[in-house]
Amino acid sequence: MREAVDLLLAHGTVVTMDPDGSVVNDGAVAIRGTTIVAIGSSAELSDRYQASETRDCHGCAIIPGLINGHAHVPMSLLRGLVADQQLDVWLFGYMFPVESHFVTPDFVYAGTQLSCAEMIRGGTTTFVDMYYFEEEVARAADEAGLRAICGQTVMRLPTPDAASYDEGLERARRFIEQWHAHGRIVPTIAPHAPYTCTDTIYREAAALCRRYGLPMTTHLSETAREVQESRAEREATPFAYAARVGAFDVKCIAAHGVHATEDDIIIMRDHGVGVVPCPSSNLKLASGIAPYRRFIDAGVRTGLGTDGPASNDDQDMFAEIHLAALLPKGVSGDPTAVPAREALALATSRGAQAIHLEHLIGSLMPGKRADIAVVELGRLHSAPRYSYAADSIYTHLAYSARAGDVRDVLVDGRWLMRDRALLTLDEQAVLRRAQAIADEIDDFLAQREVNLLDKILAIGGVQQDELFEVQVKAKISQEIVQHIVELLNGPDITVSKASERTQYDTYFTWNDASKGRIRLREDHRVDPGARATPKYAITLTAPADREEYASAVRLGRARYTALADRTLRFYREYFQPDHIVEIEKQRRRWRIFYKGEDFALNIDTLVGYKEPGPYLEIKSRTWSSRDADLKAALIGELLALFGVDEQALVMQEYVDL
Amino acid sequence: MREAVDLLLAHGTVVTMDPDGSVVNDGAVAIRGTTIVAIGSSAELSDRYQASETRDCHGCAIIPGLINGHAHVPMSLLRGLVADQQLDVWLFGYMFPVESHFVTPDFVYAGTQLSCAEMIRGGTTTFVDMYYFEEEVARAADEAGLRAICGQTVMRLPTPDAASYDEGLERARRFIEQWHAHGRIVPTIAPHAPYTCTDTIYREAAALCRRYGLPMTTHLSETAREVQESRAEREATPFAYAARVGAFDVKCIAAHGVHATEDDIIIMRDHGVGVVPCPSSNLKLASGIAPYRRFIDAGVRTGLGTDGPASNDDQDMFAEIHLAALLPKGVSGDPTAVPAREALALATSRGAQAIHLEHLIGSLMPGKRADIAVVELGRLHSAPRYSYAADSIYTHLAYSARAGDVRDVLVDGRWLMRDRALLTLDEQAVLRRAQAIADEIDDFLAQREVNLLDKILAIGGVQQDELFEVQVKAKISQEIVQHIVELLNGPDITVSKASERTQYDTYFTWNDASKGRIRLREDHRVDPGARATPKYAITLTAPADREEYASAVRLGRARYTALADRTLRFYREYFQPDHIVEIEKQRRRWRIFYKGEDFALNIDTLVGYKEPGPYLEIKSRTWSSRDADLKAALIGELLALFGVDEQALVMQEYVDL
Repeated sequence: MREAVDLLLAHGTVVTMDPDGSVVNDGAVAIRGTTIVAIGSSAELSDRYQASETRDCHGCAIIPGLINGHAHVPMSLLRGLVADQQLDVWLFGYMFPVESHFVTPDFVYAGTQLSCAEMIRGGTTTFVDMYYFEEEVARAADEAGLRAICGQTVMRLPTPDAASYDEGLERARRFIEQWHAHGRIVPTIAPHAPYTCTDTIYREAAALCRRYGLPMTTHLSETAREVQESRAEREATPFAYAARVGAFDVKCIAAHGVHATEDDIIIMRDHGVGVVPCPSSNLKLASGIAPYRRFIDAGVRTGLGTDGPASNDDQDMFAEIHLAALLPKGVSGDPTAVPAREALALATSRGAQAIHLEHLIGSLMPGKRADIAVVELGRLHSAPRYSYAADSIYTHLAYSARAGDVRDVLVDGRWLMRDRALLTLDEQAVLRRAQAIADEIDDFLAQREVNLLDKILAIGGVQQDELFEVQVKAKISQEIVQHIVELLNGPDITVSKASERTQYDTYFTWNDASKGRIRLREDHRVDPGARATPKYAITLTAPADREEYASAVRLGRARYTALADRTLRFYREYFQPDHIVEIEKQRRRWRIFYKGEDFALNIDTLVGYKEPGPYLEIKSRTWSSRDADLKAALIGELLALFGVDEQALVMQEYVDL
Repeated sequence: MREAVDLLLAHGTVVTMDPDGSVVNDGAVAIRGTTIVAIGSSAELSDRYQASETRDCHGCAIIPGLINGHAHVPMSLLRGLVADQQLDVWLFGYMFPVESHFVTPDFVYAGTQLSCAEMIRGGTTTFVDMYYFEEEVARAADEAGLRAICGQTVMRLPTPDAASYDEGLERARRFIEQWHAHGRIVPTIAPHAPYTCTDTIYREAAALCRRYGLPMTTHLSETAREVQESRAEREATPFAYAARVGAFDVKCIAAHGVHATEDDIIIMRDHGVGVVPCPSSNLKLASGIAPYRRFIDAGVRTGLGTDGPASNDDQDMFAEIHLAALLPKGVSGDPTAVPAREALALATSRGAQAIHLEHLIGSLMPGKRADIAVVELGRLHSAPRYSYAADSIYTHLAYSARAGDVRDVLVDGRWLMRDRALLTLDEQAVLRRAQAIADEIDDFLAQREVNLLDKILAIGGVQQDELFEVQVKAKISQEIVQHIVELLNGPDITVSKASERTQYDTYFTWNDASKGRIRLREDHRVDPGARATPKYAITLTAPADREEYASAVRLGRARYTALADRTLRFYREYFQPDHIVEIEKQRRRWRIFYKGEDFALNIDTLVGYKEPGPYLEIKSRTWSSRDADLKAALIGELLALFGVDEQALVMQEYVDL
């Protein structure tokens, strides 16, 4: 009598990815419950088993479900948001601001659903994630029927789901307690990276993983700069640092490893660390190309990931397999560098080792979970089919197959996709929800692009300085300078502060003057004994609403200033001004009181200008219109006192001279 | 009254790729006959034109049909045949033998049909080809409705369609005469590459192109080695050489240019040469990564190609656009290196310049040909969609769009695909024909893999040596050596030739001994005055059918020998033996006559062996069994004469000792 099984996948080319590299032509896979019972020829297995259902896989390859070893799946909602920017502009100008505004449990759930739908369509059955509100990733992945390792991100900076890392660790603890008994979803903690974490975060994360017997995941050695800074700051490569803080005392999944050194590779091998390069993302973010061949040769557990869809822009493991086969050839000059079968292994058998689930998945073998993709062969882009050599099937799968060729997907023996119909997700509803969220973000960004204030606010740290500034400027002679300095030492004026400075100002302006203008100031104190480090500030000046007084100009305008802690290049690429003007000036500056009111007094000399000055500026901040009137009158008195003629008044700002 | 047009594509995002980079949201394209009449908003064009047909392109991008600047389209039939081999093994071991057996007009026609179907599905509307029987490529492309530049390959070596290059040039001439008046198909000549051509071929090709006003296409600087050898042999880079022999006096399309130097780039720019890197193929064949950014910055006409599907393995221009955007980032460390819009331009506006058809195609502008692809946006892998920035559409197209997203394709205003249904090709018939040819090749290769003789014959130059060899081997003493040398000077034996040699033999053997064995011999004459250059030979020895005589062994076997003009590595990778044994021996060799019969007599000392010898071998070739009996008897006499005891006979070959 024949043994009963639930499902027989028959008449396909079974690519087991088992240690012997067995391939069974006209092969079959017998499945009972969640588990693979047998692999063999279709004839043999049809004889041996009575299947509740037999699925014909003629013209298809039956392969282990693909393993995406590193992802940030909710970020599918940010796909196509921005590209082709320097990493800091991309991250600080777009990703972080948008994430801090929009990342909520709802966002995470909707983004995960979109990614799960895409991954199932592309034959991916397991993914490793790292994001915020990771319980929502877990929930959506569970409902979609996928297998996942879900890492709750912890870092020392505030995140959308935790104001401090203590809170982040606590969130991770609760998340793990809630999910650790689940069959398919492995909850864990993901310290973001050495450069965003602390020793404590790594140590506590490792302790948590040890307590529950979980793998941990983190980013290591993604960029050359990260490695360089790590050496400088921590006297260790990111891998050596991670080993030092206990990250490798538990099963670790290290994303990227693009710039792993030979010593790092030995550390990985000796500690059984899994490394997961992400070929597309590593190229797109200009990180480089990981040493795939070295990882494999050294016996390191090596996988493959998509990274977040904001930097990829898809979650297509066939595309990553393709690149993992091509890139090592292109850069080494050796066309045999990573052959098709090895490349496929990175997303199956080796990939399972990299994420420490090789006892469950990664190959089609009796006893392993029935996580399977059925891939159509012989479509226009993959026809014809050669079979004279045993390895031909790998060539077809690594070089010709595409996500769109996947016909059926099973996880734990359950159909997630059949004849390209998704069975656990409502594709149209998922797409609609994703677009609705994207539309909100689109509005936010469109608004920000037209409104410089929004754009400055988006990168954070801004304070509004004043609502009104009362200001006068005049071209003066050296005699008047002398006269003013004498008066400052006289009885009518009290000096509270005095300084000398060299100021380098860069103005960003736009053809549409109504946008306002941005000034970046590098301010050096040059008077003896003053602090040596310059100050950097970014100031947005809204268009001036000028109202002239007898001898002063009252500017009704809003001004916003923030510490400029990024490079000029960052701001240039972020704001994309139509014009850039640079002004260097020598400034003598006094803070004075005149008739009980506070004024700033500058005597400026411009460097490299036709009319270098000197110029006198008298300014005062104010918050009320009435006060502005008073101060304008006092400024008129000061001008008279200094002997400045009305003819000498200059209405333009330096940048307009 | 509204003007009449044939077709209005409406409500799509029109990505014109015109010099201003215009993108029209909710845009339309009006087409009359073969030509684009207008581009504008849907509202505006609906007002202005009365269209026979209006096609709703909501949710789609309307883009210029993609341009595949370098291909060998009939090679789609060889897709997946072999991969992950060194270039010489791939080319000389597989491609050339298979091509010389199978490439017929029929093959070329069927392969072109398969490629055309694939290209239309992927939004490609124009391709540049280089192959044999190019008139069949032209015929199939014409029937498929595509636009193509078809280059009849000419090289100095025999090709499947020409025994000599004179014949090749003549074929090209006839082909051009036949097709040059065609509207969509541009016939031309394609000198293969400097390393396979002669000055004359290039000069005659250029003359032919000049006469008919045609662009010419050739391969230049694909590999570092090619450039190195070109410098050595022709004292010029391939580009400088091509300029010298007149290839750039006509409009030239240079495929690859991976290793173009700065000087080459200046040559290209000054001569208006189009360069067409093929990112996937350049990686897969380990050629490298072309300097895309430098080409663009220098103002070189730069396109993008798939190369032949035997080295890619598809003809998917979206995949090439993707790589052209990613690779320069990954290798330069600059994530802004080739932005999305530039990458798309390589397959559209710039691509048209590279193939010298920018007056007709490459952008959607009034007056240009209606070669158009309609690409669906917002599928699972490309959703959601952002539009706050004008460039977002390029990001979507370069990083997320796939060949499978193409919904409709038009060439010259004619529908080639509509709602993913091919209108000019019978897809199933094309696939069946392709598989039928592949099955024949599969059989040929399967046969060759099990039969070493076929595998040797496939690489050419083989001669069958003899059907029988009569041979004896004995371990002898130095006294007997002395005795033999004396006898050779005596009256019974006549010596016709004598030599001393060092022979380095490498044996390839298989676990399945019935396959036979292969010996690679490097044979150095060491006697004074002999030629200094070694001889290299490859010999296949079929399994011996031993029949022992009294004191000799008769081996009934076939032996095949060829000049071994490739490296040991080539043969090792081509034959993939289970075992490799190397033997070095010092050989004194005489050709003698004894009783009127011809024998070879060797006295060998093995280097590094436990039992180094000396060994005596007496051999004779024979073509008949009766003759073999006679010679065996004579060998017995010789052994007696030399005083060799029967106990000293050695039945094994050296490799088996």
